[in-house]
Amino acid sequence: MRTIVHLLNRHLHNARGEQRRARHRAKTRLEILRAASSVFRSRGYASSGMREIALAADLSPGNLYRYFRSKDEILFFCQDGTLDRLRAALEVARKARGPVSTRLRDLAAAHVLCLIGDVEGSAAHIEEGELPRAIRAAIVKKRDDYEHGVRALVAGGIRHGELRRGDATIVTRSFLGALNWTAHWFRPEGSQSAAEIAQVVADYAVGGLTGAGDRIKGNHA
Amino acid sequence: MRTIVHLLNRHLHNARGEQRRARHRAKTRLEILRAASSVFRSRGYASSGMREIALAADLSPGNLYRYFRSKDEILFFCQDGTLDRLRAALEVARKARGPVSTRLRDLAAAHVLCLIGDVEGSAAHIEEGELPRAIRAAIVKKRDDYEHGVRALVAGGIRHGELRRGDATIVTRSFLGALNWTAHWFRPEGSQSAAEIAQVVADYAVGGLTGAGDRIKGNHA
Repeated sequence: MRTIVHLLNRHLHNARGEQRRARHRAKTRLEILRAASSVFRSRGYASSGMREIALAADLSPGNLYRYFRSKDEILFFCQDGTLDRLRAALEVARKARGPVSTRLRDLAAAHVLCLIGDVEGSAAHIEEGELPRAIRAAIVKKRDDYEHGVRALVAGGIRHGELRRGDATIVTRSFLGALNWTAHWFRPEGSQSAAEIAQVVADYAVGGLTGAGDRIKGNHA
Repeated sequence: MRTIVHLLNRHLHNARGEQRRARHRAKTRLEILRAASSVFRSRGYASSGMREIALAADLSPGNLYRYFRSKDEILFFCQDGTLDRLRAALEVARKARGPVSTRLRDLAAAHVLCLIGDVEGSAAHIEEGELPRAIRAAIVKKRDDYEHGVRALVAGGIRHGELRRGDATIVTRSFLGALNWTAHWFRPEGSQSAAEIAQVVADYAVGGLTGAGDRIKGNHA
């Protein structure tokens, strides 16, 4: 009986140790992604190397390679993580109740925060064309899925007269353009926080969907 | 007397010849810019060379070099030409009478057409970071001037209660983001013409300035 308790304790102890190591590893990975996206932003992706990323993450290059094999892999996880968070925000908007304009406004603010918040999303300024060929297809597929999901929300809003009539595809791309453009002009050292900017941009972006002067159509006041 | 007439005729003849040659040269330059921007779009700027541009413009490489010294110079004139046309559209919007929302709507449509129309503007998808260092400062300065001009129009509209209240800088960048994003997603082989797309995007972009649901402020109906 004592032996069984002893074995169970040891097993529990090992399991906890593994969990701790896994948590530590996940935390370090996130710190590396954050450091890397700041390096990509300041030096440009082409001029950034694993050495600079290791330096920014306060790791030895050897240690960095225990987490990621290459800067392409790091970029992949930066973009992939951003897209996962965008998808999560889209799920919230899909399932929420209330006017579609409110749900799209919340989605827009979350989208901007994903891109210019202080985590790995700031690598979002890197264009499709700059993505290494090996990871491009997977990222583009995920981006397309996200765009389709947003378009379905917009199209539904137009169909139900909650949003102004217009070509749902073009209107959705304009909406996403206003949001995505923040990754180009946002400077972390600026006077306004990412959260403040996200609110103003989201108001603008939803305004484009709901109405314009004498063109307002089916607008819910 | 006959000699003077003869001389005058010869002078006129030479002047006409020069004008004709200048016109021909300007036409060829424009054709080169158009061909180059299509090459940049399909191959990416980094992978495009003078050889490919010459081929697309139906010129020998040697002949191409009589017009432009390098692909950087070609890119400069592509972007510079687009910015000249944007500035001209801004001047029209500035001087026009009528509601600022109508003037900004016309400007937005002209802006999109500059970027995705069939002339040299399609090189507008090339990002600041990709611009060769030698030409970057001049282009960025001109882009900044244009942005300042648009912002002044937007700020005036907000001040006079014609546009919804909001941070004029952020709102202007969101407006330009919706417009600029077209350069990323537009495909010339798509089913809609650049002109049709410009109208939908312009409606969207001005909608963001004028109002959104219950947030409408000082909207002129």
